[in-house]
Amino acid sequence: MPKISKKGRMMPESPIRKLVPYADEAKKKGIKVYHLNIGQPDIETPEVALNAIRNFKPKVVEYSHSAGIPSYRKKLVNYYKKHNIEITADEIIIGAGASEAILFAMQTCLDPGDEIIIPEPFYANYNGFATNAGVFVKPIFSSIETGFALPPIADFEKAITSKTKAILICNPNNPTGYLYSKEELDTLRDIVEKHDLYLISDEVYREFCYDGKKHYSAMHLKGIENNVILIDSVSKRYSACGVRIGCIISKNKEVMLTALKFAQARLSPPTFGQVAAEAAIDTPDSYFIDVLKEYLARRDVVVESINKINGAFCPEPSGAFYVVARLPIDDSDKFCRWLLEDFEYNNETVMLAPASGFYSTKGRGKDEVRISYVLNVDDLKSSMKCLEEALKVYPGKTN
Amino acid sequence: MPKISKKGRMMPESPIRKLVPYADEAKKKGIKVYHLNIGQPDIETPEVALNAIRNFKPKVVEYSHSAGIPSYRKKLVNYYKKHNIEITADEIIIGAGASEAILFAMQTCLDPGDEIIIPEPFYANYNGFATNAGVFVKPIFSSIETGFALPPIADFEKAITSKTKAILICNPNNPTGYLYSKEELDTLRDIVEKHDLYLISDEVYREFCYDGKKHYSAMHLKGIENNVILIDSVSKRYSACGVRIGCIISKNKEVMLTALKFAQARLSPPTFGQVAAEAAIDTPDSYFIDVLKEYLARRDVVVESINKINGAFCPEPSGAFYVVARLPIDDSDKFCRWLLEDFEYNNETVMLAPASGFYSTKGRGKDEVRISYVLNVDDLKSSMKCLEEALKVYPGKTN
Repeated sequence: MPKISKKGRMMPESPIRKLVPYADEAKKKGIKVYHLNIGQPDIETPEVALNAIRNFKPKVVEYSHSAGIPSYRKKLVNYYKKHNIEITADEIIIGAGASEAILFAMQTCLDPGDEIIIPEPFYANYNGFATNAGVFVKPIFSSIETGFALPPIADFEKAITSKTKAILICNPNNPTGYLYSKEELDTLRDIVEKHDLYLISDEVYREFCYDGKKHYSAMHLKGIENNVILIDSVSKRYSACGVRIGCIISKNKEVMLTALKFAQARLSPPTFGQVAAEAAIDTPDSYFIDVLKEYLARRDVVVESINKINGAFCPEPSGAFYVVARLPIDDSDKFCRWLLEDFEYNNETVMLAPASGFYSTKGRGKDEVRISYVLNVDDLKSSMKCLEEALKVYPGKTN
Repeated sequence: MPKISKKGRMMPESPIRKLVPYADEAKKKGIKVYHLNIGQPDIETPEVALNAIRNFKPKVVEYSHSAGIPSYRKKLVNYYKKHNIEITADEIIIGAGASEAILFAMQTCLDPGDEIIIPEPFYANYNGFATNAGVFVKPIFSSIETGFALPPIADFEKAITSKTKAILICNPNNPTGYLYSKEELDTLRDIVEKHDLYLISDEVYREFCYDGKKHYSAMHLKGIENNVILIDSVSKRYSACGVRIGCIISKNKEVMLTALKFAQARLSPPTFGQVAAEAAIDTPDSYFIDVLKEYLARRDVVVESINKINGAFCPEPSGAFYVVARLPIDDSDKFCRWLLEDFEYNNETVMLAPASGFYSTKGRGKDEVRISYVLNVDDLKSSMKCLEEALKVYPGKTN
C-alpha cells in the first residue's frame, strides 16, 4: 500500500469538528445540544439572492470566466465603493469562498518554507491553508487581557526573519470578535512598509461592527497599495455560507496575474453561487440593520452572562459574531468534551469550541473557549444557563 | 514591492485561453468564430437538475458536510453501482469540480519533489495542479500513429524512479478521445502493483463511449484497490460545467481520511451545485441516448472532414468529445493564432487549441491541434470548411 504524503499527514484536523461525534452521541441520548461551536448563522439568506437562483434562466450551466462572472465583478466594484474601497473589476478574482481566496493569496505570495505572521488566537483553518502551501505560521500573542488588541510592534519586529513574507490579519476577528482601530492598522502599515511584506487582510465580517465603531480596511492604507491583499466572502455577510463565493482583491497587478493562473487551472468558481451573490448585492439596508440589531442583542447576552459567572471573563468585542472567553477550567478540550459526554441541565447542553485550536503555540488557550453567537437570544440564554450550571459541577474547575 | 512566489511564477498559463484576445479581436471585426477550442458543450443541462435549483426551499444556504451532502453521496453509490463500481458513501468526497478532486489526490498522495507519470498529450491543467502541489510530471509519449493508445510497458518502466508515486490517466481521454481497453488497464494494474504506485484515474467522460465499446474503470481492477483513486465530475456528464461538482473516490481509508482534512480546511463544496448534481442522477436514460447520438454524428463529421484534407490525419477515437488531429502545418501555435488574426472564409473562422499545450515535452504537438466537437453538426461542417480553406492558404503549410 503506497504511503500518504508528508503534507497529508501534517494537515491539521479541524479543532471544531473533532467534537462532532460526542455531540451526535448526546443527541442520541435525547439531549438538546446548543451549537455555539461553529460560524453557521441561523439568519435567513436575503430573499433577493434566493430568488435569483429560483429564477435561473440559462439552459446550460456553463463555466464562468475564471476570475468570476464579469457583471458580478462590476457590481462588486460598487459594493466596495460604498465602503470607500476604490477598486476596478480587474482587481477582483472570485474564489470558492474566502477559503480558496486565502489559498490563492498564500500560493501567490509565499513559497514553501516561507513564514507568515498571524496574531493568535486565529481562525483555525489558516493552519490548514498554510500547511497546504508549505508555509510556516509564526504566531504572535494577543492577550485576552487587552480584549485581543493588536500585539505591540516590538513583537512583530521580533518575529520577522528573512523568511517572513506576509502578515495575515482577520478584521473584525474570528475567533475574538476584535475590531482593529485605525491606529492599529496604521501600525501594521508601517511594519509592512518597513519590511516590504504582504499584508493579507481577511475582512469577511466587515458588516458586523457594533457600538457605533467603524470598520477600517487594509485597502484604506496609503503607500502600501502593492502590498495589500484583501480577502472577502459573502458567506457571513448574507448568511450564505453554502454558496462558496469569496474573492481576492489587490492593486498589485503581478499578484492578480499570478492568482489568475491558479484560478484558470481550476477553470471557474461556482456559477449558481455567483448568481446568488450578484443578486445579494441588492439586499436592502434594512436587512443589515435588523441583522446587526439581532447580533448586538446576542453579544450582550453572551458577554453579560459569562461575566456574571464566578471566575469567568469575557471581553466585549465590537465585531463579528464570536467571543473568546476565559473560564475557570483546567483544559478547554476536556471541558468541551465533558459538556457533551457527561453533562446535561434540564436535558440540554452546549457545544463550544476549545480555544486551544485557535492558538498555534502549544499550551495556549487551555482555559479559553470560542463562542459563536449564531443562535437566537432565547437559545443563547438557555445555553449560557447550561454553561453556568456546568461550571458549578465540572470536575476540572479551578475556582 | 514584495516578490511573487517561485511557484506562482512557475504556474503555467492556460494554453487554451492565451488565444482568447485574438478571438475577441476577430469578433470585433465582425468575423464569426467557431469555438472548437474548449470543452464547454452546447448540450442542455437536464431539466431535472435545473428544476431542483429552481425549487430550492431552504431559507438559509448553509455549509454542507465537508465531504458533501450525505444524501447526495448515498445516491451516488447507486449511480456507480449501475456502472459496476461498488463503493460506499464514505468512500466519496465531493469536490469543487474534478479540479479540486485532482488537487486533493495529488496533495494526499505526493509530496513536493515527487513524480507523477502521465501519458502525453494530456489535459493541460494537470500541469497546473502538479505545479501547485510541487510535483514533477514525467510524460511518456503516446503516438497519433496508434490513435494515442497506452504507451508500451517498457516506457513506463523506463520512466519510473524512486521518486515516482503515481500514474495519472484520463479515460476516455481528453485531449485525444482515446478509450483505454481492458487489456491496457490490466497492463497498468500490473505496473502499479509491481511498483506500489497510486493509479489516479480521471473518468469524467465515462458516459461518452462510441462504436459499441464499453468503458472499463480503474475501480474494476483487482488486487490494487488501495492504490486506485477515481476522479469524477458532473460537468461533462450533464453538461453542467458551471456547477463545479466533482469527487474523489478511493477504497484506501488513509487516502480518504487525509483527503478529508484538505476538504475540511475549505469547509464545504458548493451547496447549490450539489443540489443540482443530486437531482441530475435521475436524468432519464433517453437523455444520454440522444446526447451520445449527437456526439457520434459530430465526431464523424470532424474525423471524416479532416481525413479528406490533403496532408491531414485524424484518428477515430471512441470516447469523450475531442480529437487530436495532425495538420500539414509548421507550428500549431502560429497556425491557431493566424486563423483568428489573418484568416476568414465567408466572414467566418475557427478557433482550435494548439496541441503543443497538451504535451509536457517541448517541441511535441507542433503539427497537431485539439478539436472539441461541442458544436452542432451544421456549425461543425462550417468549421471544417473553414479549416480546409485555411490550409490551402496558410503561409506555414508544409505540403
